[in-house]
Amino acid sequence: MPVISLLTDFGLKDPYAGIMKGVILSICPGTPIIDITHLISPQDVHEAAYVLSVAYPYFPQDTIHVAVVDPGVGSGRKIAAVKTEAGVFIAPDNGLLNLVLEEQKVLAAFSLENPDIFIHPVSRTFHGRDIFAPAAARLACGMEMEMFGAPLDTESLVRLDFGSPPEVDEIGVIRGSVITADRFGNLVSNIRQSHIKEAFGEGISFGQQVCIRAGGRIIRGLSDSYNCVPKGELLAIIGSSNRLEISVNAGNAEKQLKLGRKDRVEVYLCREPEK
Amino acid sequence: MPVISLLTDFGLKDPYAGIMKGVILSICPGTPIIDITHLISPQDVHEAAYVLSVAYPYFPQDTIHVAVVDPGVGSGRKIAAVKTEAGVFIAPDNGLLNLVLEEQKVLAAFSLENPDIFIHPVSRTFHGRDIFAPAAARLACGMEMEMFGAPLDTESLVRLDFGSPPEVDEIGVIRGSVITADRFGNLVSNIRQSHIKEAFGEGISFGQQVCIRAGGRIIRGLSDSYNCVPKGELLAIIGSSNRLEISVNAGNAEKQLKLGRKDRVEVYLCREPEK
Amino acid sequence: MPVISLLTDFGLKDPYAGIMKGVILSICPGTPIIDITHLISPQDVHEAAYVLSVAYPYFPQDTIHVAVVDPGVGSGRKIAAVKTEAGVFIAPDNGLLNLVLEEQKVLAAFSLENPDIFIHPVSRTFHGRDIFAPAAARLACGMEMEMFGAPLDTESLVRLDFGSPPEVDEIGVIRGSVITADRFGNLVSNIRQSHIKEAFGEGISFGQQVCIRAGGRIIRGLSDSYNCVPKGELLAIIGSSNRLEISVNAGNAEKQLKLGRKDRVEVYLCREPEK
Repeated sequence: MPVISLLTDFGLKDPYAGIMKGVILSICPGTPIIDITHLISPQDVHEAAYVLSVAYPYFPQDTIHVAVVDPGVGSGRKIAAVKTEAGVFIAPDNGLLNLVLEEQKVLAAFSLENPDIFIHPVSRTFHGRDIFAPAAARLACGMEMEMFGAPLDTESLVRLDFGSPPEVDEIGVIRGSVITADRFGNLVSNIRQSHIKEAFGEGISFGQQVCIRAGGRIIRGLSDSYNCVPKGELLAIIGSSNRLEISVNAGNAEKQLKLGRKDRVEVYLCREPEK
Repeated sequence: MPVISLLTDFGLKDPYAGIMKGVILSICPGTPIIDITHLISPQDVHEAAYVLSVAYPYFPQDTIHVAVVDPGVGSGRKIAAVKTEAGVFIAPDNGLLNLVLEEQKVLAAFSLENPDIFIHPVSRTFHGRDIFAPAAARLACGMEMEMFGAPLDTESLVRLDFGSPPEVDEIGVIRGSVITADRFGNLVSNIRQSHIKEAFGEGISFGQQVCIRAGGRIIRGLSDSYNCVPKGELLAIIGSSNRLEISVNAGNAEKQLKLGRKDRVEVYLCREPEK
Repeated sequence: MPVISLLTDFGLKDPYAGIMKGVILSICPGTPIIDITHLISPQDVHEAAYVLSVAYPYFPQDTIHVAVVDPGVGSGRKIAAVKTEAGVFIAPDNGLLNLVLEEQKVLAAFSLENPDIFIHPVSRTFHGRDIFAPAAARLACGMEMEMFGAPLDTESLVRLDFGSPPEVDEIGVIRGSVITADRFGNLVSNIRQSHIKEAFGEGISFGQQVCIRAGGRIIRGLSDSYNCVPKGELLAIIGSSNRLEISVNAGNAEKQLKLGRKDRVEVYLCREPEK
């Protein structure tokens, strides 16, 4: 039986996440349900997209990921159900799936719109309960996704602006940008370890030869851990999501650099002589 | 195997909810356990009663709902175990089950008092672990509720004052009251959509013909969504629990109207001409 | 199938706990996973050790307890996997298992170091995902703990300073100390009910004949509940973990006595005449 994962901004005080689980187990008893988080900042679709992209690779490949951060609930926004080799994803068509779909090939996609699948009456404000949870539960118990509604062209889905994807310019500089800051103030960029290896080769000693520029500052080399630099100093590190992150040892890079989403981050082979 | 749901004010930092789950799985391995919430405001039985009443209808009908908001722990308060067509409810006799029992017919009810069911030694302060969890687990694994103790007359249970249940007076005004305010400041009343339909008929256009009076203000019509009125303005809406709620678009009705639990809310066919 | 319990300081906003569960279910589908807590104060190994010691006795005896409060992640610290009659414990070698191992006989212990067990690439900062979760999942699905690495002498594990274990001196005074204060300001000591019974006998009326000294104050007798003394007054009580606790009715003993970890607590047969 596939796992259903839940990612929402519903919080943990109200019973909303628990109610979604009640609905799932009413329709498909025995389904394992795992919370990714219910503490996405309210209505922050960018954050939700990032958190989902970090988490999904570690789930079983037939997991049904349900992500409900949905400022457009009650409006005419579509709901997308997308099948990939890394699982099924059900989310509002508001950009929440952008980062996943950058990484995963779409095997099938449908618009979730068949009222036979919903719980009735469908409320105006709680589609997590009335639409998302029953759809995921029916899939888990064997319904074919074709039943959800019309096929969906995932190219037509809403695209969030996470800044441009990283590009390598003519002089060999990787130009990426900040996706999000985590609660420790670490700035997560959209530059992956694989981008750096592709640009500069596997064999390079990143720790010494790569320079990172962000917020007018230059960081020389990648650190192995936060405490490789003195407290309060900037460092660059490949974080647990394999993305380049900019941090301050025992400090807050977001505040120190005054950077945020979409601000520029660059990586290049150091030309400056090491001091 | 039936689901066990948990609703407490134990918080999520301390291990208390986890310990209850350990007890349940020790006694009845494989039981699915779902958290409704553990963040009920400490000792707020009114809030617990409301949250339970909103959540239980979405769980499987053989669910065992365990609700432990229990300021009287260690005193002589009884513990009620009540079987209904919507599941079993185990809670202290402090009013926590009032709203559920307004809606559900009691099939059987017992006082949970048989020490053979408890974990010993029974602590003075943690009956969730020593009494509630083992009782629920034994039920889940097939014990008959008759084993719990003496039959209980649910008419004799402690009644919380949620304000009077809604009544329709001689001139056709539904008089209800506020049950609770949620964390967004929405005022949830005890007037259900069904009360309005019974009083005024199925066919009526609520959006235009119904007026709501609360806190000295009159709201004309029911809104379909929060943003049907300008920001900062009052509206009335049927919330996701099918109760009449009073809200402020992008604001806080509780603060704006200075209303709280038991304050009066009235619904009637508008006599005022629409402006 | 054994339960896996999780105890971390990862918080609930970030997806880290959810990711660990995804890893576990990817490796060993169907494993029941229970959160003890993810809200240990960041890097507070003392608190983690105490919370684990309070929780584990209530879990099934074949539970695999995974505790990740790990300030030394990425350094050369070992990871201990210890089998006892009360379950398996996997934790960094930083003292986290001290209190459990005071109570439980070690049946087998290994250093978790076999890279075949890990998820690769192993990150520098998230061993919960890359090492702890896969190890627990493989055990749950039948791997022998011998596969983890070299046998470990648990006598050699790092020892936290929780203050000395309680001792009874030549004049019959039990000398113990404070382990932790909970969030209500209750001071939890390392003196167990069993220590008191051993020192003074089963038959004694603790409520009258035992005196407790802490922070320069003397408390006469053990209370049955907080409200046995007037509001604002000190009391001593056997808490739900069977340890002697010092509390203030409707107040905060930690603040009132200005006591904390390792401060002295003494119990003796009262010599002072009762007033």
